[in-house]
Amino acid sequence: MNPRLAGIAPSLIRAINARKREGDIDLGMGEPTLRPNVAPFEAALEVVRREGLPYTPNAGLSELREAIARYHAYPGMGAAANVCVTIGSEEALYLALKTALDPARDEVLIVEPCYLAYPKLCALEGIRHRAVALDAANGFRPSAAQVVDALGPDTRMIVINSPGNPTGRVWPADELRMLAEGLAARPEPVNVLSDEVYRELYYGDERPASIAEYHPHALVAGSLSKSNALTGLRLGWLMGDAKVIGEAIKVHQLVNTAASTLSNHVALEIFRRPETLAAHRPLYARQRALLIESLERQGIEHAPVEGAFYCFVRLPPALAADSLAAAERLLDEHRVVTVPGIAFGAAGEGWLRLSWVATPDALATGIQRIAEFFNR
Amino acid sequence: MNPRLAGIAPSLIRAINARKREGDIDLGMGEPTLRPNVAPFEAALEVVRREGLPYTPNAGLSELREAIARYHAYPGMGAAANVCVTIGSEEALYLALKTALDPARDEVLIVEPCYLAYPKLCALEGIRHRAVALDAANGFRPSAAQVVDALGPDTRMIVINSPGNPTGRVWPADELRMLAEGLAARPEPVNVLSDEVYRELYYGDERPASIAEYHPHALVAGSLSKSNALTGLRLGWLMGDAKVIGEAIKVHQLVNTAASTLSNHVALEIFRRPETLAAHRPLYARQRALLIESLERQGIEHAPVEGAFYCFVRLPPALAADSLAAAERLLDEHRVVTVPGIAFGAAGEGWLRLSWVATPDALATGIQRIAEFFNR
Repeated sequence: MNPRLAGIAPSLIRAINARKREGDIDLGMGEPTLRPNVAPFEAALEVVRREGLPYTPNAGLSELREAIARYHAYPGMGAAANVCVTIGSEEALYLALKTALDPARDEVLIVEPCYLAYPKLCALEGIRHRAVALDAANGFRPSAAQVVDALGPDTRMIVINSPGNPTGRVWPADELRMLAEGLAARPEPVNVLSDEVYRELYYGDERPASIAEYHPHALVAGSLSKSNALTGLRLGWLMGDAKVIGEAIKVHQLVNTAASTLSNHVALEIFRRPETLAAHRPLYARQRALLIESLERQGIEHAPVEGAFYCFVRLPPALAADSLAAAERLLDEHRVVTVPGIAFGAAGEGWLRLSWVATPDALATGIQRIAEFFNR
Repeated sequence: MNPRLAGIAPSLIRAINARKREGDIDLGMGEPTLRPNVAPFEAALEVVRREGLPYTPNAGLSELREAIARYHAYPGMGAAANVCVTIGSEEALYLALKTALDPARDEVLIVEPCYLAYPKLCALEGIRHRAVALDAANGFRPSAAQVVDALGPDTRMIVINSPGNPTGRVWPADELRMLAEGLAARPEPVNVLSDEVYRELYYGDERPASIAEYHPHALVAGSLSKSNALTGLRLGWLMGDAKVIGEAIKVHQLVNTAASTLSNHVALEIFRRPETLAAHRPLYARQRALLIESLERQGIEHAPVEGAFYCFVRLPPALAADSLAAAERLLDEHRVVTVPGIAFGAAGEGWLRLSWVATPDALATGIQRIAEFFNR
């Protein structure tokens, strides 16, 4: 057996879900509850009727790769050769870590609180990693200075996520610029792996900036899972320098050959009407307004909700020492599922993650119960 | 960059395909040309209309996992817990190698000539591997004695493929039994990774035996790609001991979360009518009869064609020293695409792989041109 697997802890989210009972209010979900548009599937099925279902090229349909590159329009990533179509953004993260680093030498910095797969993927691949903890005191505002200060002699990759899970924070453009400047001063290139799976779900006036606009060694992971309520499509992408992507395609080919041909065609239909990538945003914006109104009414402290569909909520002092125990009590005694902040790294201790994809009624009731629990 | 990637050679198949011109006869293909049945896709689309497209559980739909276990009916692998649904059999191979072995210590024996991903996956994962070359003199008949003789003190896995690519040979039941006996005598368990992606494509009276019927440490990789002409579905499975599968699911979850939900539903429809897994076999059997008749008529020596849709053809002495050069000349001068035997390991040198999924006319013309080339 591979000894690395013994060290990879089971998911806390799964442990919480195992306690869930019928009728509980679920604010723990990590995927949209909206229904996807079926039209792209009907178009894709027509292709199957006409052409069968052969493999796509390993890196995906060329037309789709081009459409993804064009849609993002990131400097130096404008061609099909800059894109590998992947099994969701999850595989894109794996490919980036597996391809761009020498596990014998290189170190990764992970900005926390974070999606729990980043450190686990490093553990799976035997890659050294360290956390950079954002500051709870300012609601986990992303900070270039903190990352640059934490760089070590072997740091060759930084993992960021904007809009971020679990905090809902967005990296401001000036912080990204400062991060790029800090990295430009380094003797060796430092990759930034930018997880942009929530890219379409922002609630300010402008689309959040990407590190790919400022830094020449960016690798971008994305997917249709969250923007289009298509988690089950398993269709994502890794974008970057063509040489790195070429090596990543080697790994991708060996590990799973290619993504589903049908999913490629569904994605191509969606990118032919790029406005459909933003179609769910107004629904989320309305839900977010309801969330914030409920939280303020109940006096619950939370990080600013700038993107994604999560809200990071601060536990009151009496509960803050053990977010897992708090989440378990909230579930057992008040029947609301949330995710303990500790599931997202030590930086998240003392907080809970709510996802606000539930129905408006469930969301309002859930927040009321959380307030009762907090104020007891 | 990961230094292991530099050592992974680009595919010879791809190099050959790059020389292909419009109008060439393609006997190099590795996938069916038949059209798949569209009905399971229509049923799956109904599910999307009704339920959207959320994630499946990481290891796939429970009902599908159970159906796969029940269909195979291998001893000790009868439950959902014995199955992980994967991105084709390719990911199943990756998961088996990544999960069941300690790269710091364990060694893999690979029976050659073989599908070229086995040694490349070992190289990607830093796993020591050695080839066991089957004997060209008896048409690469699988031999337990050869494998058992080659076992070393660190051997913890053997990779076999039956029906086999590129030889078309099937492991006889008595050889599998002898292999299991040889392994039972070892002080430590030795896994057999059995690639059964061509399991449904056999041309004798009985389904080929599986090592899983004789050996308690078997891991079985399979998929719908070849049986149902669904390479683009990217739906396969790894089966084995529930403890190993549990660890493999951890890797699967981190590397790509889950297979496509739509592909899960298509597969479930197919397993509800298991006879559809065998629906293409009579078509292949007719095509195989045509192939063998053409080869015999032209006096071309070949390995017995027992399964899959490949035929391994012996080069005449004047060409046998360099199968790559022979395949290139056959393509450039006679306009027939084949795959040089050397692409499947040193044991394949002196041979060419034909796939016989082309139209009957193309197949007959291709074989005639090969005979002209051989007899010049």
